[in-house]
Amino acid sequence: MTWLRNLIHVGSSSINPRTRNTSLLFLPTSLKHFTSEPNLQGSSSNIPRYSGLEPTKPDEKPRIVVLGSGWAGCRLMKGIDTNIYDVACVSPRNHMVFTPLLASTCVGTLEFRSVAEPIGRIQPAISRAPGSYFFLAHCKGVDTDNHVVHCKTITDGAKNLEPLDFKISYDKLVIASGAEASTFGIQGVKENAIFLREVSHAQEIRRKLLLNLMLSDVPGVLDEEKKRLLHCVVVGGGPTGVEFSGELSDFIIRDVHQRYAHVKDYIHVTLIEANEILSSFDDSLRIYATKQLTKSGVRLVRGVVKDVKSHKVILNDGTEVPYGLLVWSTGVGPSPFINSLQLPKTQGGRIGVDEWLRVPSVQDVFSIGDCSGFLESTGKPVLPALAQVAERQGKYLADLLNRIGKAGGGHANGARDIELGDQFVYKHLGSMASIGRYKALVDLRQSKDLLRCY
Amino acid sequence: MTWLRNLIHVGSSSINPRTRNTSLLFLPTSLKHFTSEPNLQGSSSNIPRYSGLEPTKPDEKPRIVVLGSGWAGCRLMKGIDTNIYDVACVSPRNHMVFTPLLASTCVGTLEFRSVAEPIGRIQPAISRAPGSYFFLAHCKGVDTDNHVVHCKTITDGAKNLEPLDFKISYDKLVIASGAEASTFGIQGVKENAIFLREVSHAQEIRRKLLLNLMLSDVPGVLDEEKKRLLHCVVVGGGPTGVEFSGELSDFIIRDVHQRYAHVKDYIHVTLIEANEILSSFDDSLRIYATKQLTKSGVRLVRGVVKDVKSHKVILNDGTEVPYGLLVWSTGVGPSPFINSLQLPKTQGGRIGVDEWLRVPSVQDVFSIGDCSGFLESTGKPVLPALAQVAERQGKYLADLLNRIGKAGGGHANGARDIELGDQFVYKHLGSMASIGRYKALVDLRQSKDLLRCY
Repeated sequence: MTWLRNLIHVGSSSINPRTRNTSLLFLPTSLKHFTSEPNLQGSSSNIPRYSGLEPTKPDEKPRIVVLGSGWAGCRLMKGIDTNIYDVACVSPRNHMVFTPLLASTCVGTLEFRSVAEPIGRIQPAISRAPGSYFFLAHCKGVDTDNHVVHCKTITDGAKNLEPLDFKISYDKLVIASGAEASTFGIQGVKENAIFLREVSHAQEIRRKLLLNLMLSDVPGVLDEEKKRLLHCVVVGGGPTGVEFSGELSDFIIRDVHQRYAHVKDYIHVTLIEANEILSSFDDSLRIYATKQLTKSGVRLVRGVVKDVKSHKVILNDGTEVPYGLLVWSTGVGPSPFINSLQLPKTQGGRIGVDEWLRVPSVQDVFSIGDCSGFLESTGKPVLPALAQVAERQGKYLADLLNRIGKAGGGHANGARDIELGDQFVYKHLGSMASIGRYKALVDLRQSKDLLRCY
Repeated sequence: MTWLRNLIHVGSSSINPRTRNTSLLFLPTSLKHFTSEPNLQGSSSNIPRYSGLEPTKPDEKPRIVVLGSGWAGCRLMKGIDTNIYDVACVSPRNHMVFTPLLASTCVGTLEFRSVAEPIGRIQPAISRAPGSYFFLAHCKGVDTDNHVVHCKTITDGAKNLEPLDFKISYDKLVIASGAEASTFGIQGVKENAIFLREVSHAQEIRRKLLLNLMLSDVPGVLDEEKKRLLHCVVVGGGPTGVEFSGELSDFIIRDVHQRYAHVKDYIHVTLIEANEILSSFDDSLRIYATKQLTKSGVRLVRGVVKDVKSHKVILNDGTEVPYGLLVWSTGVGPSPFINSLQLPKTQGGRIGVDEWLRVPSVQDVFSIGDCSGFLESTGKPVLPALAQVAERQGKYLADLLNRIGKAGGGHANGARDIELGDQFVYKHLGSMASIGRYKALVDLRQSKDLLRCY
């Protein structure tokens, strides 16, 4: 059995020579940046305990490390000139989510894959260039003195895989790790509600909705329990909450009546909001949205959630709202990772940046997107946590870093004397929100003071 | 807050009157079949402990209960005349899987949704007719004396949902619950290998493959570990194993070289088979398949697996084969549910049926698909566990039951004196297997003795 002996060596026969020759874009793999320290825990394991990407040498491309793969990080990576820089992205997610369409995937209007774009397609160098990488990992800490980030791989749900710690030296660091859904400290939200920020959330919502539809049809389930199972409660009347409620009511009218006819009279949607729905939109649009949603069967409830139990939400006035599906979309706040960083912050806990999106107290660190905000000293307001802001910041910063790189300041501590050029200026181009039944609101006002931010 | 008071009552405003009027196929929901016994465990719960569908009355449509939603059960349900019968399907899966294309979904050639068809679309009465149902549940037992099946709902992965026991009275029972992947009692298979029989399996394979591709790129992972992570081992050289190996090698050539270029030299595929691959196919086709697979980089290993550990497979001769992904497709055997039934069996443990696919010792019970086989007394061979057989049996039995129903024998114990007509005769129309790179085998021989069965 000679063929078995070299089982774990890929022979040349395994590669189709034709395909190989045509992939001209492919560059040979180089592992020169890798290092590994001896295993302190014992020598039996094949995996050393702490390895990483070493600092780049002056004759090598400088390395930009990007934390996060949302609107800000991905737009930045797309814009980086990979002739100047290598890019290493650290994120728990190997794709970007087109968040405005996420609500449509919960009920099957769109495929999940339609709203997720792999990072390797956004910045192809990450898939192919020898010094560029994507790491499926959490960042655990930033050592700004030594220009190093510390990371841990994500192996959630994978059997027999231990997470691995590693570090990456950066020349420039861009913190774009976003914000976290806020629960306002209300008990039971994390345990019982589903957020709507990732593709996995949309999948969970879909699974739960279908499961409840099926379970409510089982003999022995009483009317009251059926109503509970099929009561979809959405907390938060911002664009996400409203869009999801609209999609749900479309789903009920279009699909449940046809495909779950036995239980169609039991299902309905309630949207709970403490203030006005869509408060950042113009009054007339808000009134229109309220009318349309009510017409589609969405019950709008003004109330403040006090407590979330496994089968019911309790409002401040004591009202109990039983639910089978609970979706929580009440805006975002700083993540524990951002909280843990010893960097200047805004009042709301975001990383404070100057007019060029730099973190002023340290060298070569920038921050964009929902996790960052202008410092008070800039005299500029903290911008809202919107895709529009993040995307614009990503583009601006990519251009800025490319300019710095071209001027020879790409390496660590190399940009001190370089002219940075124009400051980042945000111009709001308007807001949109779909409300179901092929209807949507568009607010083209440019005034920023209507936008909420944390 | 008057609108909150009737929160769990759906008002008429929640339904679009236009949509309502156009859904002419919709029949009003009737719950007349439901019954519930008092809760023996205490009266605090809203859900009685044991409820069910009562026996049908002579003036009502007779009820066919179908266990399973595979090729056999779905083809049967599609063919049932719902003017004669109500249909209740009990299955852990609310859709049929088009199994021959499942392998293609693991690597993204096809969308998962393209190979899954909801049961409500296969037999629309299940979604709409007042006496027809789909129950997401396991069947726990069959009481042939009383014409009742006992079931338990499936709430896997759902938080805060207790499974519910219920029973269904049947007029005719069709057991089409299929077979189970066989492990031949080898230790560690269930814990470490992934089967390829459900959409969830294909999703797990895809997730694991991508996770391993990403993890193998992390700093500090040594060459040996990289090779292990990216070694995809397939056990079983039947059509499923071969098709999956072909798809994997396509994926490596097409996608890994482009999108995971850093690790492309580490990934490869090994197919382990104890005998010949594709043993039911003609010799010349088998030789062709072997050549093509080898050319695509699939390593064919002849060996018998003795033991499966978390990171390696051990063969009978002691050879250790490290793997990162292990897919197991060595055929099927009887499921614990089928084993538990006190019905006549074939030598291989399938439910024994007569020439009309009836279980001869009891009234009104039929069995089709992978879980059934001709009894020795029929003089016919047990048919192979193929979609082709199951599909043909489903069609035959639907016609037979429709004939019985038309002749007035649809109700329990009502078919004793009815002429059953032609026996079921299976004619093999040939076999197909894709082997990757847009190539496939087609074997049009009709001889049945080349087909393996358990």
